[in-house]
Amino acid sequence: MAEELVGNCLIGQSGGPSAVNNASVAGIVSEALNHGCIEEVYGALNGVLGILNEDLVDLAAESQQAIRGLRFTPGAALGSCRTKLKKQQDFERALEVFKAHNIRYYFHIGDGDAQETAAKIAELAKAQAYELRVIGIPKTIDNDLPATDHCPGYGSAVKFIATTVKELAVDADAAGANDLVTIIEVMGRNTGWLAAGASLAKRRDHPNDPPHLVYVPEVAFSNEKFVEDVRRVLKKEKHCVVVVGEGLVDKDGNYVAVEAGDASGAAQFGGVGEFLKDLVESQAGAKVRVARLGVAQRAAAHLSSKTDGDEAFLAGQAAVKAAVNGESDKMVTLVRGDGDHYTCETGLTALAELAGNVKKLPREWINEDGVSLNFQFYRYATPLIQGEVAVPFDNGLPAYIRLAKDSVDKQLPGYEA
Amino acid sequence: MAEELVGNCLIGQSGGPSAVNNASVAGIVSEALNHGCIEEVYGALNGVLGILNEDLVDLAAESQQAIRGLRFTPGAALGSCRTKLKKQQDFERALEVFKAHNIRYYFHIGDGDAQETAAKIAELAKAQAYELRVIGIPKTIDNDLPATDHCPGYGSAVKFIATTVKELAVDADAAGANDLVTIIEVMGRNTGWLAAGASLAKRRDHPNDPPHLVYVPEVAFSNEKFVEDVRRVLKKEKHCVVVVGEGLVDKDGNYVAVEAGDASGAAQFGGVGEFLKDLVESQAGAKVRVARLGVAQRAAAHLSSKTDGDEAFLAGQAAVKAAVNGESDKMVTLVRGDGDHYTCETGLTALAELAGNVKKLPREWINEDGVSLNFQFYRYATPLIQGEVAVPFDNGLPAYIRLAKDSVDKQLPGYEA
Repeated sequence: MAEELVGNCLIGQSGGPSAVNNASVAGIVSEALNHGCIEEVYGALNGVLGILNEDLVDLAAESQQAIRGLRFTPGAALGSCRTKLKKQQDFERALEVFKAHNIRYYFHIGDGDAQETAAKIAELAKAQAYELRVIGIPKTIDNDLPATDHCPGYGSAVKFIATTVKELAVDADAAGANDLVTIIEVMGRNTGWLAAGASLAKRRDHPNDPPHLVYVPEVAFSNEKFVEDVRRVLKKEKHCVVVVGEGLVDKDGNYVAVEAGDASGAAQFGGVGEFLKDLVESQAGAKVRVARLGVAQRAAAHLSSKTDGDEAFLAGQAAVKAAVNGESDKMVTLVRGDGDHYTCETGLTALAELAGNVKKLPREWINEDGVSLNFQFYRYATPLIQGEVAVPFDNGLPAYIRLAKDSVDKQLPGYEA
Repeated sequence: MAEELVGNCLIGQSGGPSAVNNASVAGIVSEALNHGCIEEVYGALNGVLGILNEDLVDLAAESQQAIRGLRFTPGAALGSCRTKLKKQQDFERALEVFKAHNIRYYFHIGDGDAQETAAKIAELAKAQAYELRVIGIPKTIDNDLPATDHCPGYGSAVKFIATTVKELAVDADAAGANDLVTIIEVMGRNTGWLAAGASLAKRRDHPNDPPHLVYVPEVAFSNEKFVEDVRRVLKKEKHCVVVVGEGLVDKDGNYVAVEAGDASGAAQFGGVGEFLKDLVESQAGAKVRVARLGVAQRAAAHLSSKTDGDEAFLAGQAAVKAAVNGESDKMVTLVRGDGDHYTCETGLTALAELAGNVKKLPREWINEDGVSLNFQFYRYATPLIQGEVAVPFDNGLPAYIRLAKDSVDKQLPGYEA
């Protein structure tokens, strides 16, 4: 049993939100209240920005209704950010804020990059002999974090994508036109997890169901093969549904379509759907509809996976339990049971293991044709989209909650990041 | 009481599908089975194309499960088409097919154009003294048919649009970036009904909730005013959510953005979101996300409005009752009750009244600012999105049904349309 560490806890969210991001916050808050050593439960507004600016809110003051509502509310209830702490000065400021508010437990919900920031804060605390326990909670619809079987957020995104593919396919089927190609562009910068997930729209034992063609970054893209693939499908089927991940690369590893960089210099993905549209129209002579699912695929909490939401909540709880038990510098992982029946428990991995590691879709889960997935992927992904969340509706629309966000009094002078 | 007309009935679907298009088919089939004078219940595959090609299917042979499933399955279960009968020869062929299968009742589910075709078939039957009763059932997410309070399909589309606007706004709010503009492009060729519907995402008495700016074709668009509107919102709010209808026009009545015409010569709308993005980026210097909801807004049956689905079913039933009672050359309308509590009954209007008439969003329902709706619109639209449909899920995804489509034996030689 670890020595009891008495103090306050802080939660930060970062990176692109997911449908179940807030469920992890709910898990942390609920569990924190079970432990006497955790005195106050604070949230940082907009992740590390809130830490630097000392913008903290009192989560224990939120109504129980609000905390319960986090389980089905999309976005990042505390606000998120894409800011990474880089300068030593920023890390020192962060730690100063932690000390000023006696933060002894820090829970960081985010993707791989975010976990790196958490690791560095932990490191500095150690150097200054300030006792702090830091636990990361994974969150990314991209599903590309190593060490965890899957990431909270992925199952819900796939449930939305596969449902939308099904609905767009039904609509295209109704059109009665021959040679109609529907191209659906999904997210996924470097991996094909999301695009592959669209395959779940096929009925069991109906390999010719839509989506007919799935293109992932793990398979080098060729214009010629693509046009041939589309022609082949249109010979057999009334219409063709294509799903494509935004981060598609050619045989030389170059992105097939990247838009201009944004202000932060990060490449803005997307546009690959339009690129494929031009190919089909000019070379296969078919009519094309493009749908780019965009932000909706990570925000559609009205259609989130219950399994995913429950696991996100569980990961939040597990983070608190681990920290109270003396763990630090770890990220919670999801561990799949060995049995035939899907089970999931939590584990821990060192934050240091995560940096720069990206988990790709295994090549052996993709069929020889390069455009469909085999049973190994179905076995992996199917359990993750099971169950529906009973989102309460108010006046015909989902009743997502907003936190009251009672500010915690500032103790320090302002800071220019 | 009308003279009993004994014979078979035929159902055709046409135009762009909606989430509740098939609920009207279910209403017709269920009601038809209650009337002894209707012997067989047939469906035409792909609307008038199926009539010309004599591609008819036996709907009475479908399982009860399948017919029930039509109430929550999007698309057009019988297939749709955009073909209009134009040549006299085509109308004559259509009637020949009707005669060959003793079709005495024809139910045509579609938008304004479709109803025109139905009217002409009825006219020719009269000229040839062939007793035929033709009833149209309205269907369009555009909600622009005259004579009916609203159109089946509209409520579900608006429920999806308003939910998505809410979810994208929550996601944008989480970004923590100032000056982020989210532009959401919705359908609506000539009218702003769909764009206006996005306003339902605002909480009651929270006029500053997203969507902050709604642009409809009923208000002439000005680039300068738009940029000013966005600047004004960004001064007060952390981020700005814009909803825009695809058919936006300037003060001279020219479309703000139209893509190249398709093969049929019909203008392909869309692209106005990207047009506004360029304006904001170049003139307001803000970061922009564009979401184009596309076909999803008419296909998202997993989020359809129960009120809408029930009314679509009711309209199908009403069509059969009217025809059996001797009515013909009419379209079913939805008639709103006068009371404070929303009620809806069906009525009838002459098909002849519909041709070329488009119902626009009343200017007096739009505020002076030209970018928001007043209480009259809320009073009109709010009841239409009420209630959720319990779509059955199978293995994590909506279990939409497919009809067996047992072919009816052809009686006639083939036809080259």
